[in-house]
Amino acid sequence: MIHATNLPKVHAEVSAVFAQYEDALVNNKVEVLDALFWNSPHTLRYGTGENLYGFEAIQAFRAARPAQGLARTVLKTVITTYGYDFATTNIEFQREGSSKMGRQSQTWLRTEKGWKVVAAHVSLMP
Amino acid sequence: MIHATNLPKVHAEVSAVFAQYEDALVNNKVEVLDALFWNSPHTLRYGTGENLYGFEAIQAFRAARPAQGLARTVLKTVITTYGYDFATTNIEFQREGSSKMGRQSQTWLRTEKGWKVVAAHVSLMP
Repeated sequence: MIHATNLPKVHAEVSAVFAQYEDALVNNKVEVLDALFWNSPHTLRYGTGENLYGFEAIQAFRAARPAQGLARTVLKTVITTYGYDFATTNIEFQREGSSKMGRQSQTWLRTEKGWKVVAAHVSLMP
Repeated sequence: MIHATNLPKVHAEVSAVFAQYEDALVNNKVEVLDALFWNSPHTLRYGTGENLYGFEAIQAFRAARPAQGLARTVLKTVITTYGYDFATTNIEFQREGSSKMGRQSQTWLRTEKGWKVVAAHVSLMP
């Protein structure tokens, strides 16, 4: 089984959707965020204060979240692709006004509808 | 692009290596843990109190970690496979003597040397 790591074309694709996600997050473009998550009961998101199972639970959480205070500075980004259809994106970030270090991990899959997040984990390090 | 989710044979394979990982973790079988992580500079692990980049940093961290206090109870497990070569494993857990909820997310890749963790994120929810 060989999965060439970081093929330039694939890496560029994932970098582009990842940038789209980050922009949507800090600007609370909920529809874009929803569109970038895999619409499946298997999709899962561990947030800083909640564990969400299934696309519908994630969508409901976003819809209910306050639109303020989402700004953050990304301090480090690692995007890795494996073959043509699979990728991970990991960042360290800091929210405005917080001294805690945030980490966001996402696993991406190329689907018939484009690249989608199939699993995510966000946490703040004490 | 079609990636059949949770093909029984693939799901069974990942469940088996995941069980091996959990056993190695709580019993501090460092060599087994090392063997289940992808030996690559791309491998990454966000832990409860550290951000580790590259297999060597992860290996050094494990070697230095105290062997006590690793016991934990797994409260919920979600293992999802995508096609034949990719998978995510996510658990909620509680450490003995702690009231905090732990979450562990791993992304797995089938390599020429078997299934390996390519990215991991562990956090405690306040």
